[in-house]
Amino acid sequence: MALIVQKYGGTSVGTPERIKNVARRVLETQREGHQVVAVVSAMSGVTDGLIKLAREISTDPSEAEMDVLLATGEQQTIALTAMAINALGGKGASVTGAQAGIQTDGVHTKARIANISPQHVHDLLDSGHVVIVAGFQGQTSGGRITTLGRGGSDLTAIARAAALKADLCQIFTDVDGVYTCDPRVVPDARRIPVISYEEMLEMASSGSKVMQSRSVEFAKKFGVKFEVRNSMNANPGTLVTEEDMSMESVVIRGVSIERDQAKITIRGVPDQPGNASQIFMALAAAHLNIDMIVQNVGLDGKANISFTLHKNDLAKATSTLNPVLAALPGVLLSADDGIAKLSAVGIGMRSHSGVAAHMFEALGRAGINIQMITTSEIKISVTVDQDVIAEAARVVHKSFKLNESFITT
Amino acid sequence: MALIVQKYGGTSVGTPERIKNVARRVLETQREGHQVVAVVSAMSGVTDGLIKLAREISTDPSEAEMDVLLATGEQQTIALTAMAINALGGKGASVTGAQAGIQTDGVHTKARIANISPQHVHDLLDSGHVVIVAGFQGQTSGGRITTLGRGGSDLTAIARAAALKADLCQIFTDVDGVYTCDPRVVPDARRIPVISYEEMLEMASSGSKVMQSRSVEFAKKFGVKFEVRNSMNANPGTLVTEEDMSMESVVIRGVSIERDQAKITIRGVPDQPGNASQIFMALAAAHLNIDMIVQNVGLDGKANISFTLHKNDLAKATSTLNPVLAALPGVLLSADDGIAKLSAVGIGMRSHSGVAAHMFEALGRAGINIQMITTSEIKISVTVDQDVIAEAARVVHKSFKLNESFITT
Repeated sequence: MALIVQKYGGTSVGTPERIKNVARRVLETQREGHQVVAVVSAMSGVTDGLIKLAREISTDPSEAEMDVLLATGEQQTIALTAMAINALGGKGASVTGAQAGIQTDGVHTKARIANISPQHVHDLLDSGHVVIVAGFQGQTSGGRITTLGRGGSDLTAIARAAALKADLCQIFTDVDGVYTCDPRVVPDARRIPVISYEEMLEMASSGSKVMQSRSVEFAKKFGVKFEVRNSMNANPGTLVTEEDMSMESVVIRGVSIERDQAKITIRGVPDQPGNASQIFMALAAAHLNIDMIVQNVGLDGKANISFTLHKNDLAKATSTLNPVLAALPGVLLSADDGIAKLSAVGIGMRSHSGVAAHMFEALGRAGINIQMITTSEIKISVTVDQDVIAEAARVVHKSFKLNESFITT
Repeated sequence: MALIVQKYGGTSVGTPERIKNVARRVLETQREGHQVVAVVSAMSGVTDGLIKLAREISTDPSEAEMDVLLATGEQQTIALTAMAINALGGKGASVTGAQAGIQTDGVHTKARIANISPQHVHDLLDSGHVVIVAGFQGQTSGGRITTLGRGGSDLTAIARAAALKADLCQIFTDVDGVYTCDPRVVPDARRIPVISYEEMLEMASSGSKVMQSRSVEFAKKFGVKFEVRNSMNANPGTLVTEEDMSMESVVIRGVSIERDQAKITIRGVPDQPGNASQIFMALAAAHLNIDMIVQNVGLDGKANISFTLHKNDLAKATSTLNPVLAALPGVLLSADDGIAKLSAVGIGMRSHSGVAAHMFEALGRAGINIQMITTSEIKISVTVDQDVIAEAARVVHKSFKLNESFITT
């Protein structure tokens, strides 16, 4: 007998029929001889409806009250899911975040989990219940309701699995798992059977939004092995786990792309301490998220700094920077809002040299011009013109033979 | 400075605009120098929507899970109301039933309040907050969410007022208070400024459904003085309180009517112990609510038993009784589904003789035939043909001069 934590997102519980489907899956797992905890999100649309209501009441609703309001979405789903399990002859028991012993800090709308008391859920499991836990929510030590922010239900499932010392955590979503690339862009992309936490993190941070980085980081920190699966079919998914020796045999695990990026280049910055920090401090103060940053210093001792950000933030970024740059004579700002990012990710590149060269050569052969390049230990990212990103993805995907079978299963 | 508990029902918080209106009223009360606790219901329609969802999941949803589901309705309203108060520059704090320390027994969907811990709410009040409490809900000592059943939010308000030793409890609804009769039937009906708990109970149990009897009984038991007022205007309401000497000067406080009643008469029942109980045991076993019961024994030693019930229950009652009566030879059952009940209520009738005679005489003069009569210490009820109930109400209302000013204010 294993203890399995399953998580079902808003789409998977979006209608009464789908909730019944979740109930069937959960009970199947129990009938295979396992203890099951199911973490559920709000039905899709419910949270947006509540946010709309709040905006009609107040342009700036308090975050503490938003948490009280939004937590009702998941509370509705736990009750409905438990009813569906009971209707199928099972024994379902719903628990809210607070009842499940999920204690958080007091940072409303994006609280961090501080502690989980597993006893109540263990007791319910031991008495034969399937336990349905409200995702996304907890309470402070003072008893105030909190929510965990974006991706909060994934985090609930993974933290819950850690606290219960579960044998497996399954994240059910509306895709079959993590793919070598977005199948809408690269039709022969393949499902990745096993991926390391590190690779998953790099995929998540570079456009493959199956899960928020935060949940993957938590899983890595507490060694929670989890599977990403499709709630609408019985296909195998992607197992996310510790890196092992066999993984290095695959040089590149996957390719992720991110569109709608913009690039700002600042030329002729005097190469003196403080100039770069002045620029990025101003951007941070304006709450602008910057992604890639590259800097080169020319022979004239002037630096050229380029960085990328979402194109929706471009206008705000230039208006933020103009007064800063006015104080630096001879500095020029140029902007391009038609770029995209491509990243190749794989822990195998640690032990295989020439990976970057291989990728650049493949892109060059296809006539695709590379703009910026950044690398981390297990990722190479480049920006290209937005118009050629799909072609670039297909070229890189093929050059690393990602369309062929994996050795690992 | 007084401590005032206010209760706003589902219609009063039915839209964002109405929630803002509630926030304004609550803050006005606070600015007059009082501490305010507002108990709110779910927005009208929300509870029905949730019940519909549950029925799509299961034909027989567990009552414990219904409570988890339905409690979200009030939780949404407390958050929205607190936001509205904050948006007006006030300090609102929302608390769920559990957070408000409302402990109940474990009878889901119709739990009874066992205990209220007032400390948390007192602390919030003392730090200058308006406290918004979710009506209709509590939790068991084991931490399960419960709801209090019909009229539960009124009960929350009155119990909360008792626990906080509040100076006043105000029940805001969509009418101006309790009237001498339904103004749609008797156009010159007047608002009753003060009424005793006993009179309010008799009015409630005989058709004037401003509040459930349960809440009035609770208020009486714990001596909670409360006012029924209209949330949409600033009109004075009806104060419900302990009987005092001045109240007896008014013979009849009000007239209530109840339509859609049916009457069953069973003739020729041998007047022996057990026959009547056999009949009413069978009706109780079928969960049929019986209202008035009268029995007479004739010179032949046979009893005639009549009782009233809602006309929707008539078919079930006759099919329940037929097998019982088959065992009693010579017994005949007749039914009439076109009757209505009229009740005159007033503690003054205790000390004034001839009240019943006065009422019967007025009805007789108007040519209205009286069918059944029952009396209690402070109420006289009669049934009449449904077609003449409106006229009967106007005749009785006028005969007791209820259209004229009260002495009490």
